[in-house]
Amino acid sequence: MVTTSAQPIKRTSMTDHNAPINPLEEMAHLLDSDMRAVNAIIMTRMDSSVPLVNQLAGYLIAAGGKRVRPLLTLASTAIFNGEMTRAHLLAACVEFIHSATLLHDDVVDESAERRGKATANEVFGNQASVLVGDFLFSRSFQMMVDDGSLDVLRILSDASAIIAQGEVLQLSTANNIDTGMETYLEVIKSKTAALFSAACEVGPVIAGQDKTIQKSLADYGMAMGIAFQIADDILDYSSDAATLGKTVGDDFREGKMTAPVIYAIQSADTLEKEFWQRTLADKNQNEDDFDLALAMINKHGALEKSMALADEYASRAVSALNVVPESALKTLLIQLVDYSIRRKF
Amino acid sequence: MVTTSAQPIKRTSMTDHNAPINPLEEMAHLLDSDMRAVNAIIMTRMDSSVPLVNQLAGYLIAAGGKRVRPLLTLASTAIFNGEMTRAHLLAACVEFIHSATLLHDDVVDESAERRGKATANEVFGNQASVLVGDFLFSRSFQMMVDDGSLDVLRILSDASAIIAQGEVLQLSTANNIDTGMETYLEVIKSKTAALFSAACEVGPVIAGQDKTIQKSLADYGMAMGIAFQIADDILDYSSDAATLGKTVGDDFREGKMTAPVIYAIQSADTLEKEFWQRTLADKNQNEDDFDLALAMINKHGALEKSMALADEYASRAVSALNVVPESALKTLLIQLVDYSIRRKF
Repeated sequence: MVTTSAQPIKRTSMTDHNAPINPLEEMAHLLDSDMRAVNAIIMTRMDSSVPLVNQLAGYLIAAGGKRVRPLLTLASTAIFNGEMTRAHLLAACVEFIHSATLLHDDVVDESAERRGKATANEVFGNQASVLVGDFLFSRSFQMMVDDGSLDVLRILSDASAIIAQGEVLQLSTANNIDTGMETYLEVIKSKTAALFSAACEVGPVIAGQDKTIQKSLADYGMAMGIAFQIADDILDYSSDAATLGKTVGDDFREGKMTAPVIYAIQSADTLEKEFWQRTLADKNQNEDDFDLALAMINKHGALEKSMALADEYASRAVSALNVVPESALKTLLIQLVDYSIRRKF
Repeated sequence: MVTTSAQPIKRTSMTDHNAPINPLEEMAHLLDSDMRAVNAIIMTRMDSSVPLVNQLAGYLIAAGGKRVRPLLTLASTAIFNGEMTRAHLLAACVEFIHSATLLHDDVVDESAERRGKATANEVFGNQASVLVGDFLFSRSFQMMVDDGSLDVLRILSDASAIIAQGEVLQLSTANNIDTGMETYLEVIKSKTAALFSAACEVGPVIAGQDKTIQKSLADYGMAMGIAFQIADDILDYSSDAATLGKTVGDDFREGKMTAPVIYAIQSADTLEKEFWQRTLADKNQNEDDFDLALAMINKHGALEKSMALADEYASRAVSALNVVPESALKTLLIQLVDYSIRRKF
């Protein structure tokens, strides 16, 4: 692992000195008062005169999640001693954009559950989910206007347009077994990594860093986001997934073209190709098919190939930080890369 | 009619000198080269590397519609001799926001037809409609960033947030027969009039006019939009509707709480209240119920009351233009108010 070169920080403040570090928790710990400020802004700014907006947005946002993206904005600002009050507002913007895309994703995917909790569309209906997503999205732009930086507005409006296009591309490639790695990478860059990248780029912009530094943070977020998404897609075919709170086999059932399947199809013989054609393209699946799919994926080492690809991007993410001065936060950003491909968040 | 005080312009350039004027056509005629520029920007900027985005956006936008909102932005800029190249870009933004809301509206309303043509969700599916709506919305913000005015960004992000909340409020009031006129007006201000208002306000901002002028144009758009939406809601209970290309009775079947029904319920006796409870609140409708609804609406003069309300807002729209210097475009804006409550566009 290229990414394990940074040694874990041992948390001396905790009772269990030997517990493996979770860089996200560590980052949230270091930036605790900032995250409180972000959460306060999130609660204040999602407020609407329309009760159903509050209920739905509250259901989604108050529940939390790991707040990875706002943490990245805070860290990438603090690392350059940028103005943290601006980072608070813009970290909340990033979380609103993320929440809006989650709401719309779950409608598009017809998801009933996320992180073991009923999705907003399941509780409040698709209609309200679409519209409250629109509200959160618009609200994030109002907040960026309050901040007043056209550079930030450009970064986040560009990311938003890319995310939407990536989601449409993913829709177009579903059940298309001719989808190659290039298209897959385009999808995950757009739908996942673009917002990580934007969240990281905002920090040096706030802190008035030059274009080289801005680009290095954007590159870090992009590569880390790609590595994270590949690892996430691997989990859908991994027997460990259950322990990590993820349902196995959803991508297979939905005919999503992700790295494990694409690698397996690349190495498939005629019979195997017929299997993928029937199960993914023709959407004709039997109960045993997921186990058969796993067997073929393992036979061709498709999970290992996928993990090697994730490692490649993880390595790029770490390299992108070379120009950034050493600091506790930089070390955590480096550790986050490895964490992002080993754990689900 | 307060709004008929402005005399129609006779188009001497046309063959039929006695044809009644259509102020929208007249405006499009006066601003012909500008509208061509707007259409060119629309075609260029909706372009995406994802084919399905192009197909769906193309289906929706290329089909046209009357382009009322971009015309308002062009007119409200030209009237003050503002920079038309900026107006072209921002008029296209306004149309993108409108198109995004149409895409999401049709998903929310499960509409199959709009202006006699299959809706995008009917042709391309709800998933693509949601995501391409997100794309057009994001793209409009990218274009505003290109323009670089934070004032414009504030006007249009505010309008977008208000629209989304208005749509949610409408969703919450559907099938609720206790909905009063105040809530109804709040819904139509938000979902319809806010974007008319923003489209009109952008012009004087581009042209560097003072706050008084900016507000007068915003007020004009708001009042005109309200009048237009009330008139549109009247059409759904009007026997003339078929000739105007609108399906009659959709609002009744969907349990939408609009002016005609709200006025009828205000005057309803016990038996009539039971009827509205059964048909709208309990969603238990028989084939004859729409005719019964029409009879009750007519009995209480609810369409006349609705039209009087539309007239009141039409009158406010015209008054809002008092501070604007006389010009051919101002005359057309005044005529547009009357036109908007007499015709469907």
